Amino acid sequence: MNKSRLEAFSDGVLAIIITIMILELKIPEGTSLQALKPLWPALCSYILSFVFIGIYWVNHHHLLHTVKRVNGAIMWANLFLLFCLSLVPFVTGWMGASNFDKITVAAYGALLLFCGVAFTILANAIKKTYTKETGITLALAKSKPKTTLSTLLYMVSIPTALYISPLLSALLFATVSVMWIVPSKAIEQALAEQDEK
Amino acid sequence: MNKSRLEAFSDGVLAIIITIMILELKIPEGTSLQALKPLWPALCSYILSFVFIGIYWVNHHHLLHTVKRVNGAIMWANLFLLFCLSLVPFVTGWMGASNFDKITVAAYGALLLFCGVAFTILANAIKKTYTKETGITLALAKSKPKTTLSTLLYMVSIPTALYISPLLSALLFATVSVMWIVPSKAIEQALAEQDEK
Amino acid sequence: MNKSRLEAFSDGVLAIIITIMILELKIPEGTSLQALKPLWPALCSYILSFVFIGIYWVNHHHLLHTVKRVNGAIMWANLFLLFCLSLVPFVTGWMGASNFDKITVAAYGALLLFCGVAFTILANAIKKTYTKETGITLALAKSKPKTTLSTLLYMVSIPTALYISPLLSALLFATVSVMWIVPSKAIEQALAEQDEK
Amino acid sequence: MNKSRLEAFSDGVLAIIITIMILELKIPEGTSLQALKPLWPALCSYILSFVFIGIYWVNHHHLLHTVKRVNGAIMWANLFLLFCLSLVPFVTGWMGASNFDKITVAAYGALLLFCGVAFTILANAIKKTYTKETGITLALAKSKPKTTLSTLLYMVSIPTALYISPLLSALLFATVSVMWIVPSKAIEQALAEQDEK
Repeated sequence: MNKSRLEAFSDGVLAIIITIMILELKIPEGTSLQALKPLWPALCSYILSFVFIGIYWVNHHHLLHTVKRVNGAIMWANLFLLFCLSLVPFVTGWMGASNFDKITVAAYGALLLFCGVAFTILANAIKKTYTKETGITLALAKSKPKTTLSTLLYMVSIPTALYISPLLSALLFATVSVMWIVPSKAIEQALAEQDEK
Repeated sequence: MNKSRLEAFSDGVLAIIITIMILELKIPEGTSLQALKPLWPALCSYILSFVFIGIYWVNHHHLLHTVKRVNGAIMWANLFLLFCLSLVPFVTGWMGASNFDKITVAAYGALLLFCGVAFTILANAIKKTYTKETGITLALAKSKPKTTLSTLLYMVSIPTALYISPLLSALLFATVSVMWIVPSKAIEQALAEQDEK
Repeated sequence: MNKSRLEAFSDGVLAIIITIMILELKIPEGTSLQALKPLWPALCSYILSFVFIGIYWVNHHHLLHTVKRVNGAIMWANLFLLFCLSLVPFVTGWMGASNFDKITVAAYGALLLFCGVAFTILANAIKKTYTKETGITLALAKSKPKTTLSTLLYMVSIPTALYISPLLSALLFATVSVMWIVPSKAIEQALAEQDEK
Repeated sequence: MNKSRLEAFSDGVLAIIITIMILELKIPEGTSLQALKPLWPALCSYILSFVFIGIYWVNHHHLLHTVKRVNGAIMWANLFLLFCLSLVPFVTGWMGASNFDKITVAAYGALLLFCGVAFTILANAIKKTYTKETGITLALAKSKPKTTLSTLLYMVSIPTALYISPLLSALLFATVSVMWIVPSKAIEQALAEQDEK
């Protein structure tokens, strides 16, 4: 009961975040296809953020599978993660409106880094409540290298955007997203095994 | 559990998409009934999109009835469908603001085509997990001609809007929507039988 | 399963409608209390609509208690009701922005009338699926005089706003809302009895 | 069933309120870090309100744990609480836009006071339905001194903002929020015990 309400609230917030971003796509004045042209950066940054929120939703979903009982630490760690993610539409809109200006791309990288840290805090709060290892907790532990690599790439993306090229930095974000879209076989198998029991 | 969260998230996103569109209806300056006149195209395009999102919600609902276990492919195919649908408020607003200009009506047709493709991708990802045929999977298979016809009509609607008449194109959309509002007797019966078991 | 998803989607849409209206309350330019003064009509119309959406939520909740199995007719009748209700924020904002101008108050009355009709259509679609009378269906039937009286008051409110006084018309709305806020003893008792079983 | 729908609707409204506030963070015109500077007060007021809505969500969650059956009084008390909370984004935006002007900070304090009163009304409506004392009802009763102290601090914050210093008043809000973020050991233990049964 406890846990299902945490999931419902998180799903609600994530659903709103992912949909609110589209409000940044201002309806163009004209009706020629050229009127759509200045919207391209906004659309690209929307797609990128949609994928990232999607990744967080999928991982949040897997992580909560391992929760038995929700305590205060988990609730507040979850709210902190949602807070970080709630800033995504703002930075996404800023990056799109400025046509991927270096400052905004660096800010986007910094925000993704923050979100990653918040997710790790939530994962640790949940881990503290584990009483025994299960297939899923073991499978989740296997994704640690991927988490570390993502964090490193986010860190690298900030100076890259500022001093080398915002485009290269955006490519780093895309790399991270592809890394996570490919589903983890280990987690899928563990979830399938749990369902069979 | 897995599946109910997928449904909850999808319902959340669809509920927000369907309601956000109303924000495009700008409050008129004056208070005469004539002040409402320029809102007619916006209201018409809102009604059309409301019906289409409603159709997707009903069909999504039927399709998910056949899912036993959610895997990564289903989750991402679902997110891709939600992404396509999340662009509906934007194109709806554009079409309404431009008084059904031919470019915007063609863009609307193209978006509906994309949404249809995304739905087919999701249906295929789900079909791969079927272990045996049930009444519902058979009933869903029967709606294939309707899906093919809709896709064809969307394809036709794009050149129709550009080279013949945007109004005729809008009539094609209305035709598709009526085709889907009429509920499938086969699916209703299959669902009723499943519930009885 | 079927039914719980209908409830979840309806709750989502109603929650968004009720919260979106607050976006019409534009943040005042100044910081004196006088800067808040022009917001009064907007706040009043927001409160009125909040209460009406709340009433629809409560009644929808009771009505769905009597549903065994959701069919296509119920799904589309429900979507039609949600469509009518989704227009409430727009008309609320218009009425507030125009300081309860007679045209807007009449439009508000007409919308409430439409919502009432849509609710009756949904109730009838649900009644058709009843296989036997239960305590709740009997209790709901008892609220018919209240429904008829509300419909009459909405009808009266339109000419009242246009030809007599918008304020008197708003008082009629308030009367209807008070009529429905007072909970029906019959329904509460029937629900309590059902829970005990 | 009854209760889960009340939770779902409340979660939906709270999720929307918490996310809508971010729409007040207008995307800056420039791309320098200085362009972000005028956003600081808006961001600070957003963080403060995010924490408050979070606190209400957590406490609402605990309070509803003690509900057996939802009646009309509980439903309307809950809607009244949601109404008060729905005004938070408006006052938050006003306070942020005015750079924590004394009038707006006092209004914020008054709104928090109203929300507290609405929560107490809901808690009392729920208490009336208790048939016996459980671990959770006893644990909730223990948080009464904290509720009283919060109410007092809100009351003090209004004249403090107006006549002494808005900053000091904001510190009082922060004090209250810290008081509630620290989770109640008594409630956590009671919930754990209930789950074990």
